[in-house]
Amino acid sequence: MAWSFALVIDPAASDDPRTDFADTFTVIDPTAPALSVGELSTQRGDGIFESIGVVDGHPQEVDAHLERLVHSAELCDLPVPHLAQWRQAVKTVADAADPGESVIKLILSRGVEHGPTPTAWVTLARAADNTRSRTEGIRVVQLDRGYGVNASADAPWLLLGAKTLSYAVNMAAIREAKRRGADDAVFVSSDGYVLEGPTSSIVLRFGEVFVTPEPSGGILHGTTQLSLFAYLEAEGYATQYRRVLPAELAEADAAWLVSSIRLAAPITSVDGVDLAVDRDLTASINAYLLSPRD
Amino acid sequence: MAWSFALVIDPAASDDPRTDFADTFTVIDPTAPALSVGELSTQRGDGIFESIGVVDGHPQEVDAHLERLVHSAELCDLPVPHLAQWRQAVKTVADAADPGESVIKLILSRGVEHGPTPTAWVTLARAADNTRSRTEGIRVVQLDRGYGVNASADAPWLLLGAKTLSYAVNMAAIREAKRRGADDAVFVSSDGYVLEGPTSSIVLRFGEVFVTPEPSGGILHGTTQLSLFAYLEAEGYATQYRRVLPAELAEADAAWLVSSIRLAAPITSVDGVDLAVDRDLTASINAYLLSPRD
Repeated sequence: MAWSFALVIDPAASDDPRTDFADTFTVIDPTAPALSVGELSTQRGDGIFESIGVVDGHPQEVDAHLERLVHSAELCDLPVPHLAQWRQAVKTVADAADPGESVIKLILSRGVEHGPTPTAWVTLARAADNTRSRTEGIRVVQLDRGYGVNASADAPWLLLGAKTLSYAVNMAAIREAKRRGADDAVFVSSDGYVLEGPTSSIVLRFGEVFVTPEPSGGILHGTTQLSLFAYLEAEGYATQYRRVLPAELAEADAAWLVSSIRLAAPITSVDGVDLAVDRDLTASINAYLLSPRD
Repeated sequence: MAWSFALVIDPAASDDPRTDFADTFTVIDPTAPALSVGELSTQRGDGIFESIGVVDGHPQEVDAHLERLVHSAELCDLPVPHLAQWRQAVKTVADAADPGESVIKLILSRGVEHGPTPTAWVTLARAADNTRSRTEGIRVVQLDRGYGVNASADAPWLLLGAKTLSYAVNMAAIREAKRRGADDAVFVSSDGYVLEGPTSSIVLRFGEVFVTPEPSGGILHGTTQLSLFAYLEAEGYATQYRRVLPAELAEADAAWLVSSIRLAAPITSVDGVDLAVDRDLTASINAYLLSPRD
């Protein structure tokens, strides 16, 4: 990934409305050493993040991402991010973006072990070319997530609703999918319900109804899925949150993995069984997702 | 934590027996910026680690830790660590230790995103004073781990037998324990078996028999537990690996959480119910664990 810009932000910003948040930002070289080995993000995956798509300099759905960052911080007992400060940081970074598609990452780490405060930084990188995934589609395999669909209801320390830096399992699932000749994975709960992809939400179409698995503690509520449902409703379709069974994937009229950077990737096969792709609708969805969204 | 020494190692070391591994080490300032924001250890918790106790300059159980590092690397599809290289790195770092107790951490990260190779480093820090935990003991609460005891048998991508950098849940469990007025947690599987602590193994005593939960994909095999069992057997006790039920903790004659740095911490209460502490035996165990062990 070609990082082009990064800034460290001091998360201990003042609530004083006269504060110029720019004073809490330090621009750094994204390819140079910036973090010490004592960082708990690196030692323990102990922190939270968001990935925001940037199209021609416009950061997409910033409020939804910042709301989720706040939610993740609450679940992880991290200081609640200061929204105005982070919004300004996103704008500052987005202003450095080249035309085309980029990725902004927000990271809030618990900081250096036994250090005084969390650490936080925001990076900008050129996005990978996702044209092929968006047009030709992706093959997926269904993989057990190990947890029951309601695992975190009485066990918030499992952090299932938080977007934490502890993504080793998500990365391992994608490697397993590739080992099986697929491109990506769809997690299934140990009690047999479809959850989400390792870095995406899943959306299925049955006739005129679009379905995504009911958000629960076990599913990260996807910002792109939310935005897509609003679009589909405006287009006259019905949308539904409900339990989804693994066998339904093969029965769907179409299905997509949706996420902030790759956007809508139509699923062409599930565990080796072909699935129909609605190319026109997929193109419309991605055109919408590439348009400026707030 | 007071880091006193660190070196980055080039994990792409040659197998040529004439290689001087010292050439693959770069000493760094452990408190200075050393890692770039693109590090996958920090972005994704994507890497593995080991913590080795050092007593008066002697690193404990190095081979057992390196074997587990290799096992973790295999589970995580990371290049298998070169044992002679890592052993020399541990020795180099241990030689820089002050008298008393220190901690060496070995970290093997997947490296910078889209970068050419993994990154690896070894740090040295003064250990916290664990006297109170070892003598006065610790209060624990039992917390659901969300997974069934055999969750990873058919799902190796859950990485349950690997010591990964994705420890956010382990850290959250310890915070939850403190919120409940305890010092540490004991994880219980979703199907009702005692597993381990977030950063330790559990050992229970029933008469002359010492028991630890049967290692499975869901339990990290503890180097300190292994060493302790060898000691107990030499002392004439019986040792046993078997399934342990949560109710057995309150019935045990004594119980400990054991780990490489805190060593044997006797459990004084489980979910608020007092447990007997065998102070003499605990002192003997910790004296053994503090003696040079290879």
